[in-house]
Amino acid sequence: MMEDIKLAMDLTLGELTKALDCIDLAQVDRLIDEICKAEKVFFVGVGRVLLALQAWVKRLNHIGIRAIYVGAIDEPAITAKDLLIVGSGSGESVFPAAIARLARGTGASVVQIGSNRSGTVAKYANLFVRIPCRTKLNLPDEIDSAQPMSSLFEQTLFMLGDIISGVIIKRRNINIHDLWRFHANLE
Amino acid sequence: MMEDIKLAMDLTLGELTKALDCIDLAQVDRLIDEICKAEKVFFVGVGRVLLALQAWVKRLNHIGIRAIYVGAIDEPAITAKDLLIVGSGSGESVFPAAIARLARGTGASVVQIGSNRSGTVAKYANLFVRIPCRTKLNLPDEIDSAQPMSSLFEQTLFMLGDIISGVIIKRRNINIHDLWRFHANLE
Amino acid sequence: MMEDIKLAMDLTLGELTKALDCIDLAQVDRLIDEICKAEKVFFVGVGRVLLALQAWVKRLNHIGIRAIYVGAIDEPAITAKDLLIVGSGSGESVFPAAIARLARGTGASVVQIGSNRSGTVAKYANLFVRIPCRTKLNLPDEIDSAQPMSSLFEQTLFMLGDIISGVIIKRRNINIHDLWRFHANLE
Amino acid sequence: MMEDIKLAMDLTLGELTKALDCIDLAQVDRLIDEICKAEKVFFVGVGRVLLALQAWVKRLNHIGIRAIYVGAIDEPAITAKDLLIVGSGSGESVFPAAIARLARGTGASVVQIGSNRSGTVAKYANLFVRIPCRTKLNLPDEIDSAQPMSSLFEQTLFMLGDIISGVIIKRRNINIHDLWRFHANLE
Repeated sequence: MMEDIKLAMDLTLGELTKALDCIDLAQVDRLIDEICKAEKVFFVGVGRVLLALQAWVKRLNHIGIRAIYVGAIDEPAITAKDLLIVGSGSGESVFPAAIARLARGTGASVVQIGSNRSGTVAKYANLFVRIPCRTKLNLPDEIDSAQPMSSLFEQTLFMLGDIISGVIIKRRNINIHDLWRFHANLE
Repeated sequence: MMEDIKLAMDLTLGELTKALDCIDLAQVDRLIDEICKAEKVFFVGVGRVLLALQAWVKRLNHIGIRAIYVGAIDEPAITAKDLLIVGSGSGESVFPAAIARLARGTGASVVQIGSNRSGTVAKYANLFVRIPCRTKLNLPDEIDSAQPMSSLFEQTLFMLGDIISGVIIKRRNINIHDLWRFHANLE
Repeated sequence: MMEDIKLAMDLTLGELTKALDCIDLAQVDRLIDEICKAEKVFFVGVGRVLLALQAWVKRLNHIGIRAIYVGAIDEPAITAKDLLIVGSGSGESVFPAAIARLARGTGASVVQIGSNRSGTVAKYANLFVRIPCRTKLNLPDEIDSAQPMSSLFEQTLFMLGDIISGVIIKRRNINIHDLWRFHANLE
Repeated sequence: MMEDIKLAMDLTLGELTKALDCIDLAQVDRLIDEICKAEKVFFVGVGRVLLALQAWVKRLNHIGIRAIYVGAIDEPAITAKDLLIVGSGSGESVFPAAIARLARGTGASVVQIGSNRSGTVAKYANLFVRIPCRTKLNLPDEIDSAQPMSSLFEQTLFMLGDIISGVIIKRRNINIHDLWRFHANLE
């Protein structure tokens, strides 16, 4: 009964590799610029997408970038010097779309990471980073997946956050063994 | 069937009034001093006690005091310039006690708000603010309650946070109509 | 410097007493009926209102009622047998209003607890429980408050949850010393 | 400036592939059995490990398995029919270790997913699933990583949850297009 585990592992890793390969690195490069020049970086998403983004929030804070998810207990006000990153495959979820509209109204930069560049969120975004994974919309140029719902999108998003943190660490010449001073020390 | 609602309302409000009356205002005054001189204020608690403390965190941030609960996604490191407020009636909950010990080790100030001044948390605290509500320990000088579990402690803690915020607003001469600039504006 | 603490305490408790007095007990009675006949009870709100509602969620689960807040990691689907309780003073917050509309579409019952009975949320609600505390709308029949923002609404909501739990405990003849079997035992 | 992004992507994916390859499939098979026979499945971890586990919680609920993380607002009591999964590389974090001990005392099954099989958590676990990623302990047989802190462990844990869900979906012959009925529909 263990062959099926090996199969599921290969399938999942294969899909993830394919999804990462489809990302336009120039878009990621512009996203990194947006993150590095923002005073604060806000994140919004729902469900497992939010969990993947919260992993970004944690790691960015560790490398000295002030990051917050929308809904956090200590969420400050967003200003025109800040950035909002919206994680939404379809760009049609009610909450992220409403938040993107509000953020845009404050003059903040808005980036969507998603698959559908013609959705509601994209209208408020000044940068679109495409992870072309299957959404409910079944767009013609989306990667199909044997996994349930938007698992592949969430996995790719989780990994992309760590890849971006890795790039920032290199570009800023941060010593990763120094990072613990930013890390929560009450645990 | 509505008399029982009126009775429950009177009972709850009566218990709350009694609990607030029993708090030593000199201890609250010292707590306010600790909050005002700290660089950052951390909070730890579990269950409904944590919810009550998270209401403190939100309001303190609104009046310009950097407050964080232990376990927050963007939790920074605590330092000797910071304050940890532990909400624990019995002072024996595993997690708050462990966090109090760790915080003390960093040189941070530690305050316990609770009923039992002889518990584990109190050993690490340099200030104890007593809300003498019934705990699992059934100490002789605790206020009894007809409400389940530690409801009365949680209610009193929730209210105390707002009372303290009100005092700080007055002492610092803050215009409450100005506070929205600190308030989350993405909702 | 302790007189100001006593003053703030009296003011806060006075406002809370007044707000609770203004609640129509017949509405609370109907709310209790809705809670007791629902298969699952969902809650939605934002900020400190959500914290107050999460305290309801915790206590209702302790007395054997399946309660969930919208956004919880293990949130199940809502059905026509369920109830959604919306906490929103103005009834105009984007997220609660969107969730109320979605819930109504599933056939679930919807209750608003708030001040403004003419807002967006109220359009989707089959029961309105009024806590007439000041909102951003400054309606003519709202209780004014010397406290910042919607503190008084949040305090009243927090207390109302415990009052309602107390009533259900009596009506169902629950022994409160038995309740620990529903309580989280990993803390 | 885009070559460094490609390099970081390849490095991250390479490390993830290597970590997944090192997992003993027989241990995963036993873990799946534990999950499938449990009445409820609890998860405990801290920081980004907790985020990865919360993604498991969400997906398991979608496929009909009652899963909860320790600390959830609606956390029920654990019993001898339940399972606790502890995510901890070193097995020495204070909170997970305390929870593992408490769970063991109730008669529940305890599984540790981590690197160090000689830590405190492992003493309370009846199954150990090894992800041999670098911990603070720098054990001799751990995979080293160029990524900061325990990123690789967290990534592997996130992916492993989806792999296991995929296996259960196959074994139970679940139609993934049917899963939306378990999925939160208020978003």
